[in-house]
Amino acid sequence: MAKGKWIWYPDDFEIELSNKFMAQRYERDVIIPPFWKQSSCYKNIKFIKQVTLKEPETVCIQAEGLFNVELNGAYVYNLKNMLTLPAGEIKIVVSVYNDKGIPCLRVDGENVYTDDTWFATCNNHVYNQTKCDNCLIEDGKTPNTVKLPTKEIKPVQTLEIDGRTVYDFGKEIFATVVLQGVECVNNPIIYYGESLLEVCDIEHCELFSTDVKKDNGCAYTEITKAFRYVMVEGVEFNSIKALFEYLPLEDDNYFECNDKLINEIYDVAKYTLALNTREFLIDGIKRDRWVWGGDAYQSYLMHFYSFFNKPVIKRTMIALFGKSPFDVYINHIMDYSFIWIISFYDYYKYTGDAEFIKDNVSKVFEIMDYCLGRRDENGLMDSRPGDWVFVDWANLDNSGEVCFEQVLMIIALRYSIFLAENFGYENKAKEYTEILSKTETAVDKFWDEEKQAYVHSFKNGKSDGVIVKQPNLLVVLFDMCNQERKKAIIDNVLKNPQVPAITTPYMRFYELAACCDIGETEYVLDEIRSYWGGMIEEGATTFWEAYDKTQKDEGKYAMYGRRYGKSLCHAWGATPLYLIGKYIVGLMPENFGKSFVIKPNLAGLTHFKAKMPLTEGNVEINVSERSVSVLSTKLDGKLVWDGKEYPVLANQKVEIFRK
Amino acid sequence: MAKGKWIWYPDDFEIELSNKFMAQRYERDVIIPPFWKQSSCYKNIKFIKQVTLKEPETVCIQAEGLFNVELNGAYVYNLKNMLTLPAGEIKIVVSVYNDKGIPCLRVDGENVYTDDTWFATCNNHVYNQTKCDNCLIEDGKTPNTVKLPTKEIKPVQTLEIDGRTVYDFGKEIFATVVLQGVECVNNPIIYYGESLLEVCDIEHCELFSTDVKKDNGCAYTEITKAFRYVMVEGVEFNSIKALFEYLPLEDDNYFECNDKLINEIYDVAKYTLALNTREFLIDGIKRDRWVWGGDAYQSYLMHFYSFFNKPVIKRTMIALFGKSPFDVYINHIMDYSFIWIISFYDYYKYTGDAEFIKDNVSKVFEIMDYCLGRRDENGLMDSRPGDWVFVDWANLDNSGEVCFEQVLMIIALRYSIFLAENFGYENKAKEYTEILSKTETAVDKFWDEEKQAYVHSFKNGKSDGVIVKQPNLLVVLFDMCNQERKKAIIDNVLKNPQVPAITTPYMRFYELAACCDIGETEYVLDEIRSYWGGMIEEGATTFWEAYDKTQKDEGKYAMYGRRYGKSLCHAWGATPLYLIGKYIVGLMPENFGKSFVIKPNLAGLTHFKAKMPLTEGNVEINVSERSVSVLSTKLDGKLVWDGKEYPVLANQKVEIFRK
Repeated sequence: MAKGKWIWYPDDFEIELSNKFMAQRYERDVIIPPFWKQSSCYKNIKFIKQVTLKEPETVCIQAEGLFNVELNGAYVYNLKNMLTLPAGEIKIVVSVYNDKGIPCLRVDGENVYTDDTWFATCNNHVYNQTKCDNCLIEDGKTPNTVKLPTKEIKPVQTLEIDGRTVYDFGKEIFATVVLQGVECVNNPIIYYGESLLEVCDIEHCELFSTDVKKDNGCAYTEITKAFRYVMVEGVEFNSIKALFEYLPLEDDNYFECNDKLINEIYDVAKYTLALNTREFLIDGIKRDRWVWGGDAYQSYLMHFYSFFNKPVIKRTMIALFGKSPFDVYINHIMDYSFIWIISFYDYYKYTGDAEFIKDNVSKVFEIMDYCLGRRDENGLMDSRPGDWVFVDWANLDNSGEVCFEQVLMIIALRYSIFLAENFGYENKAKEYTEILSKTETAVDKFWDEEKQAYVHSFKNGKSDGVIVKQPNLLVVLFDMCNQERKKAIIDNVLKNPQVPAITTPYMRFYELAACCDIGETEYVLDEIRSYWGGMIEEGATTFWEAYDKTQKDEGKYAMYGRRYGKSLCHAWGATPLYLIGKYIVGLMPENFGKSFVIKPNLAGLTHFKAKMPLTEGNVEINVSERSVSVLSTKLDGKLVWDGKEYPVLANQKVEIFRK
Repeated sequence: MAKGKWIWYPDDFEIELSNKFMAQRYERDVIIPPFWKQSSCYKNIKFIKQVTLKEPETVCIQAEGLFNVELNGAYVYNLKNMLTLPAGEIKIVVSVYNDKGIPCLRVDGENVYTDDTWFATCNNHVYNQTKCDNCLIEDGKTPNTVKLPTKEIKPVQTLEIDGRTVYDFGKEIFATVVLQGVECVNNPIIYYGESLLEVCDIEHCELFSTDVKKDNGCAYTEITKAFRYVMVEGVEFNSIKALFEYLPLEDDNYFECNDKLINEIYDVAKYTLALNTREFLIDGIKRDRWVWGGDAYQSYLMHFYSFFNKPVIKRTMIALFGKSPFDVYINHIMDYSFIWIISFYDYYKYTGDAEFIKDNVSKVFEIMDYCLGRRDENGLMDSRPGDWVFVDWANLDNSGEVCFEQVLMIIALRYSIFLAENFGYENKAKEYTEILSKTETAVDKFWDEEKQAYVHSFKNGKSDGVIVKQPNLLVVLFDMCNQERKKAIIDNVLKNPQVPAITTPYMRFYELAACCDIGETEYVLDEIRSYWGGMIEEGATTFWEAYDKTQKDEGKYAMYGRRYGKSLCHAWGATPLYLIGKYIVGLMPENFGKSFVIKPNLAGLTHFKAKMPLTEGNVEINVSERSVSVLSTKLDGKLVWDGKEYPVLANQKVEIFRK
């Protein structure tokens, strides 16, 4: 009997799993569910299959929820789990109703078994191919019970501090805690710390568990938490371990150069990204443990230069969109909604995964239409009550028409037009093309002739005259102005110490990418050494949500008004993965992942070697002091070195000797 | 400490409760969940209250779901159930996340307690007043655990048939079964029958329970079933009883006349309606146990002349609509969608409940716009794949432009315009007025000059020439043509024995109402005697889904190709309640329930007396052979007798002596 897969209505799995995942954010004993509108799966689904059988066959049917089976239009009475199907043309309709989770179905049989060739409807006359998962649902699990694997981790040392014992697991992990040989349990509490200061400060540490379960001489927690250090109160025990929960990732790609600090930064960045790569790409493992569109986009880009895990990117994009209709910005944030479209395009650019694009491209137009419907009388994006115009954690007045948002709208429009043209939505392409042209004209007012830069915003028809880096670096990054203006921006804004510095790794991602784009790669490598190297010097085993080298002692962990509010393992902290992959290794996809170009840039390094993922296989590069060699296992591409192009054929090493 | 009520986001309670209720339809051992798209409640809700306290106060907070409390913008740590609020202006925000049911909240406190003055948002920047229930949620229950009360019923007799014992509960009930003094339990099965034939035919009876629970010498079922007879297999026991589940209803209204058969019919109709009046107004208690828009509309109208239970009507209308956006016909049925609008208007006409109208009137426009969006190039309703054009259980070809649907569209448009004009949607009123005028012109093509009647349908631009009663009786009922046409319809269709007779109580409802409207009340009373009297003669204790006096023996219970497929307790079977209330008692609301007119019609009876509900109080009428007397407890109204009008003042009996 062939094995079927659990199948479900498209998007239901991602939506429910993300709801479940995101409902695990705690701030001390306070649960904080997401504060944006969440979607739900449909409750009653019909799964449909038509097939012709040469001979009768017995299949095994399982469903989660109440269900019935109609065989050729008649309900099957007395159905246990096994059902014998007659020979000939048959139509099976399984109705599944589940008010406690995802309605899902699994049929095992020789010729009839569930896979994504079945159809499903939520009973609205629309029939879609079902979805099944290829990687996350292990044997014995269902879409409703899926759980990531765990591995045991022991503390690397114990510390005695003020009469208490602190267990140090050596580096940041995401895990539950198990105490063995437990006696005299007395309402145990387990305190966690990303830092030693945090775990010892039990009045202020962000996380602790009071809901410790007991079983057979063990005490354990059930909700995974982020920590390096643990302290236990109210229970005696023999030994402690952590069950580290992780998403298995392909991990044979690497970057290695002559600068040990850069190598270390690269490895810590990779570990940071891995920890935040789970059921979904989340912002941080201590806080918020949520899926944020802007954070996730940077994680996608980092993935293209590290683990290249397409399934987690797809799950994340689907969860972020939720169910139609799209009637509130992603995460409530205007910018993050445009960024969803931009990241959807980039996903296609890097992966060439046309099937995912085809299945989901209508979501691009839903988001775009929603955003366009919120423009003001000048055709520009302005916020309405409740909308969040984020831009960056910075001292910005984001009311009125904010330039940063208009730039994102233009990029999103361009990509939407491309997707509409290439995936059968010609009318949309036409409509957006007209809007784009008007928008480009309207946005020109943000250019300040006197200051030779884009101003931050217009309010009530007047420029605020404020020059900040955020909109200007986007314009450079997305190549949205002529060379003259670009040059002016570089001089007057990006390299101008009078303009406020960017302080979040989130915006540094774009800033440093823009710097690389204008040829400042050596400067960027220095910035990496100083900014990310600074965190390593602070003892970071993962990169932080924010970092300011002037903050010392306790203050360095504070954020949002709380002593340990700062997340010390934040996805956007892993930015060097992208910067090094794209600008030092110099790898870019071509022709939507069918090919690649690699244009290494030593940026002051003497040599490096690296292995990077491609849509198929990978590419290894070795820039030694003597030569540049490239080997791609599966794809043809090209090497650019010293201004010259060299073809790279699959599985044929190319070696160019340096002058 | 004052008592708070459980509060929730508008509509969530009705939607979830109806989902739960409708997932209990069984056909033998096959569960049949509704086959239309179902909505769900929102998962994460913020409940908000701003208040100024003179002094600190301690409140008790309960929620179903994970929750947190923000007091003046700060999360409350260490919250147990009791929270002390400071004096002064305070803002409480309680976030509740529930992925297994309705997120709901209850706060008990002296000055701060939950009621419908709190606001709620599903985190889409829209803030609505919360809802709380005044009647269905008893002490100790929550919106998620609400359950109707039960009372014990003992069998009235036992029958020995073919060596088996049948327990007869005397009349149809809706109940679970309890066996006491149970021994040697051996996979017991309980068989149910609405008829004696059904319960004895264990291979074909529609309902049986195999999931019998055991506890402390008892065996019992958990899912309520419809039955009069019970047979038990596989278990010895001392005694049997039923726990009859019911919605408590005001029941002091009555109708009593000189014709005992009519009196009996009236009482059986009332019991039939009561059984189908539960959490919602359902079609039948054996099958489907679902909420159907067309069936429910007739139940509303019957309620206005019997129990006048507004809450169940409101719950039913909300459940039928579900959540926005409205993207598939109600119950998949085109007619039922128009009927939702018509019944919404009628609810206002009979109750004057402007608050409910205001809260829900936008749903009228959502439905109307959806329907209008599905018109064809002639501006007429035509079905699209998957749409169900029901009209009636009759031998009709409902493809193409069906006249019945166009008539409903016109009525729905008229009512929508009224509602738009009176509840602040002037633009909608204008838009619909234009459409209405065009539609009326377009619909005129259905009038067949030669046949002097409306034809059933147009297909591909051509009339099918078919004359049936359904569209013609609607035109008469809703007064949609001139007197000349009306007269022609009466002669050529309604009184024409060549035109196929109506066979469902559903359509008889409209047919007989139309007959009354054209003055044929005596004929209608005779029809009631013969059609409903026929069922009583068959031993009916409740009225049926369909009845044909020519069907005898087993055949009379068959429907849908199953021996006992016919529902013997079907809401639309209770039609005489409406016909007698509106056309014999002659009661009609005036000025949207603020007043009333009563115009009794003996229709061949010598005398009758009745008590009927009004929006406030009730009205008693006694038409004796000597006089007509009317007493209204709370409302002013008028009596029309012998063509003359007599004012009726509240609490002042009017008596007119007959000539």
